[in-house]
Amino acid sequence: MDYKIRTDLALEVRESFPEDDVEIKGVVLTEDFDKQNKIRISTVVIKDEAGARAMEKPIGTYITIEAPELDNSSEDYHKPVSDYIAQNLRKLAGNLYNDEILVVGLGNREVTPDSLGPQVVDNLFVTRHLIREFGKEFKEQNHLGNVSAISPGVMAQTGMETVEIIKGVIMETNPKLIIVIDALASRSINRLNTTVQIADTGISPGSGVGNNRKALNEESLGVKVIAIGVPTVVDAATIVADTLTKYMETTGFSREDIFSFISEINGNQVYNMFVTPKNIDEMVKQISYTLSEALNSCFSAANLS
Amino acid sequence: MDYKIRTDLALEVRESFPEDDVEIKGVVLTEDFDKQNKIRISTVVIKDEAGARAMEKPIGTYITIEAPELDNSSEDYHKPVSDYIAQNLRKLAGNLYNDEILVVGLGNREVTPDSLGPQVVDNLFVTRHLIREFGKEFKEQNHLGNVSAISPGVMAQTGMETVEIIKGVIMETNPKLIIVIDALASRSINRLNTTVQIADTGISPGSGVGNNRKALNEESLGVKVIAIGVPTVVDAATIVADTLTKYMETTGFSREDIFSFISEINGNQVYNMFVTPKNIDEMVKQISYTLSEALNSCFSAANLS
Amino acid sequence: MDYKIRTDLALEVRESFPEDDVEIKGVVLTEDFDKQNKIRISTVVIKDEAGARAMEKPIGTYITIEAPELDNSSEDYHKPVSDYIAQNLRKLAGNLYNDEILVVGLGNREVTPDSLGPQVVDNLFVTRHLIREFGKEFKEQNHLGNVSAISPGVMAQTGMETVEIIKGVIMETNPKLIIVIDALASRSINRLNTTVQIADTGISPGSGVGNNRKALNEESLGVKVIAIGVPTVVDAATIVADTLTKYMETTGFSREDIFSFISEINGNQVYNMFVTPKNIDEMVKQISYTLSEALNSCFSAANLS
Amino acid sequence: MDYKIRTDLALEVRESFPEDDVEIKGVVLTEDFDKQNKIRISTVVIKDEAGARAMEKPIGTYITIEAPELDNSSEDYHKPVSDYIAQNLRKLAGNLYNDEILVVGLGNREVTPDSLGPQVVDNLFVTRHLIREFGKEFKEQNHLGNVSAISPGVMAQTGMETVEIIKGVIMETNPKLIIVIDALASRSINRLNTTVQIADTGISPGSGVGNNRKALNEESLGVKVIAIGVPTVVDAATIVADTLTKYMETTGFSREDIFSFISEINGNQVYNMFVTPKNIDEMVKQISYTLSEALNSCFSAANLS
Repeated sequence: MDYKIRTDLALEVRESFPEDDVEIKGVVLTEDFDKQNKIRISTVVIKDEAGARAMEKPIGTYITIEAPELDNSSEDYHKPVSDYIAQNLRKLAGNLYNDEILVVGLGNREVTPDSLGPQVVDNLFVTRHLIREFGKEFKEQNHLGNVSAISPGVMAQTGMETVEIIKGVIMETNPKLIIVIDALASRSINRLNTTVQIADTGISPGSGVGNNRKALNEESLGVKVIAIGVPTVVDAATIVADTLTKYMETTGFSREDIFSFISEINGNQVYNMFVTPKNIDEMVKQISYTLSEALNSCFSAANLS
Repeated sequence: MDYKIRTDLALEVRESFPEDDVEIKGVVLTEDFDKQNKIRISTVVIKDEAGARAMEKPIGTYITIEAPELDNSSEDYHKPVSDYIAQNLRKLAGNLYNDEILVVGLGNREVTPDSLGPQVVDNLFVTRHLIREFGKEFKEQNHLGNVSAISPGVMAQTGMETVEIIKGVIMETNPKLIIVIDALASRSINRLNTTVQIADTGISPGSGVGNNRKALNEESLGVKVIAIGVPTVVDAATIVADTLTKYMETTGFSREDIFSFISEINGNQVYNMFVTPKNIDEMVKQISYTLSEALNSCFSAANLS
Repeated sequence: MDYKIRTDLALEVRESFPEDDVEIKGVVLTEDFDKQNKIRISTVVIKDEAGARAMEKPIGTYITIEAPELDNSSEDYHKPVSDYIAQNLRKLAGNLYNDEILVVGLGNREVTPDSLGPQVVDNLFVTRHLIREFGKEFKEQNHLGNVSAISPGVMAQTGMETVEIIKGVIMETNPKLIIVIDALASRSINRLNTTVQIADTGISPGSGVGNNRKALNEESLGVKVIAIGVPTVVDAATIVADTLTKYMETTGFSREDIFSFISEINGNQVYNMFVTPKNIDEMVKQISYTLSEALNSCFSAANLS
Repeated sequence: MDYKIRTDLALEVRESFPEDDVEIKGVVLTEDFDKQNKIRISTVVIKDEAGARAMEKPIGTYITIEAPELDNSSEDYHKPVSDYIAQNLRKLAGNLYNDEILVVGLGNREVTPDSLGPQVVDNLFVTRHLIREFGKEFKEQNHLGNVSAISPGVMAQTGMETVEIIKGVIMETNPKLIIVIDALASRSINRLNTTVQIADTGISPGSGVGNNRKALNEESLGVKVIAIGVPTVVDAATIVADTLTKYMETTGFSREDIFSFISEINGNQVYNMFVTPKNIDEMVKQISYTLSEALNSCFSAANLS
């Protein structure tokens, strides 16, 4: 049982530190703001072990794109968001963006907020088999990337760790870059489906709706791993704890006390519960479409808009 | 905005009254317990307007089947639960069980905890068209019920109130009994997917994951309506409020104060959020199968086991 | 058992007449060709009973948009096709395009080539409930149409004729125009997923994959009905018969002889079989997206591009 | 382009030889018949290279279970069929039935007749992760098999050959037996969804709806592979050719002539077409349920009924 506040967003971890703007040792935060589209791009760089310990996240770069109006139906608004994702993905991918890429759609297709990864893969333009059939010239003439993709399912469906499946696939197909898509847990309801995190650290244990219990990163897979995540749920215990904490703020109770109290009231099941909005189906459909667009344009050999 | 504790279970409303066993005026509670299978059958009868006001539920009979082990994968256990549902459904249906029946699967097929109704309809043995084609003798020889079914979708998908769709269908097809299947909200995590409520009152506004904003009952539809519901979610604000209330129990704050505090901390979005377990896909699949079995055996002209 | 060549396309019926270009009495055919996009627009008008008898289709206007390259993945090509659909739909709808419209997605969601209608409805921008909530001004400020939608399922799932369900819904919600989306059967493999037929006659019995046995038209529904169809299957007996006929052309066998021979060889099951391409999933996904786009832009109060 | 009659059933290949009952060299056919349930079990053993050449199938054992009434909704009838599958599967699996098993659901989830494999996997009782968590004793106390499962998707979705994915997964997870589930093509409409073939040879190229272009067998995977297949489609060119052949029987045309004629009439697209019944959704749902039941009981350490 894990009695911690759960968030998969480095930005939220950074924000949880006291508000005096002193820099945390080993952690650099920079920000950009696109006024016209009201899109904020924050980059958290964890530079060393001290920063990693403070943030409880691995060393690496975490780019967060916040687009508060993403959770709307206007298609026009999806284009700039999709463009920012593609640009920042290329930034983290370096020269690999046009090399052999395997996209992994994590999560359970049957649980709506966890179906983000599989839905992105469903809309992806997969080309590896075409290039193997028609050759490199075909790739270049058509400005194609070299993309394969898989939605491996979750352990309750397969009996296997995701890392086992992906490691095996990598050994057979030799991609040079892995891009992992996952539904995340954030701490705040406001971030759901409006925030995209791109990190060159891969996926750490215990993220998202499911329990991807083992890491998917360069260390475990032997290939560079970029993770793209969108928060679609808030952990139920976290939302209760955050509310209680605000209430008890001055009373001197510790986090552990509060979580233990929540557990007492709600039973331990609360730790396997998540909170999600009622229109999560529309939200995941829209954001997954935006992500697929971003990936499709990022991988193409053409210049980005 | 509705700052109330939300539960769709009459039994939970009844339990929320102070624990001295004095009967609430106009409300009768009886209980049966099947020791072998650990299944409890509670019947709440709201007899008059006084009871209806106290319970904030319409006059009628609410049968609750609690099977705490239902949330397991053993198929053997589903049989007695399915039998109890069929028997109690026949009890409320009276002679209509073998007449023309329309089953309505409420909810949004695309949101896992709300897909209960559509999933039950998917597994239903629908016969009305066969009987119209092959005649009454065919029905009797094969011990068939006369069953039609529809999953109308939710207002965000159709632009129509469910009551409009169902009313129209009833006018054209003339069923004698409507059975409405819906995912409910309970107050307690423990009840999720382990409790079945059968009520001869139909569905009241604001139940379940979606906002079925208008009632589906004999008054609105002109035909007797039995509702079968299974709690698959807890309202997010309710779970937070319940926890806070326990904490603040002795402090003299009112419910309104607490909900207003929750709203201040979490924003009003919390009122469009629900809490559900991570394995909700397996749970809904299993319980919907149990319900379909119950309906299929209930409608048949054969005797129940 | 119906031993006829089956096609739901008026254009194919017209083409089946001997090739001397003499006009069939009561039937007018006009054609337009967009060279740049290689899109052909044919309009068959059946003017009177004589034409209706000759064509075995009801009196009315049948517009066929042939876009042989539609069956490709390029998104750029979908835009002009979508525009032609929207323009011609407005032509047949007259002033009703901006009135209250009910879109009906016919077909079985679970059978890929028959899922066209439900998939179009899934991507539709449904607004009726918003306009009822926020008023006419909201509609006008946002250039919205007034759209409701339903995917009623097929008789094997509901036990009801589609016409019963739709008639009921119309009585309750009073739309001024019905637009019915359906997967059709064509006679030629070449037309699958590359041809769109728009007709102001509604749907006749026996079309498409399913057996929508009763008509959906102004006569049966009391409201103007425009049908939009895309061939996704060829009837299995028809493809066999067409091939055999070519072979036997000079031998003096009649159609009836040939069909009876097919039935002898293959058993009568062949009449419940359809032929469809292996990548039907991608095709239906693409064309349904094109149709949704066309509908969304047609209904809007804005001018069409 | 492959101008051959296509069938994935060894039994149909065997039947295609002239009807004098002389044994084909290297091929042994034995039969059993269960009169009560009208189930026929045929075993074709291809013993040597001569037999393999004659049959155009690899050396091995092909067990075919024909249950003509399987294509009905009665659940009672599924039990004996499921039992025969489990028994014959154990026969081919030998001692491995209770060892570590990987079940592979081949095919495209989005194309109804090709979704058999994924649907079987969806209903499978997967246990490998539980045994890794709770140990061997847990396995034995609960009479569990050790089962993992994956639905890898098709090449158009993944860009990868299925054999690449499965080989990788095998290297990481070390199963001792692979069971591959696939939708097959038969030559006869009568066999669709009523016949089950179990073979210890794995899957040969070009089977089923999709083009699993590379073999999945002990040679390619390094582990014993048992394939379970159910015909859900007939190849469109084959059905046309079979009918034409009957017609032209005495005319001295060769198969090549006939296929070339079909190609001339219908275009080459006919070779990417399949024929399937209109109620394929119900059929695949039923038969996949029967297969899952068979697998679940086969793998359990308990005795079979």
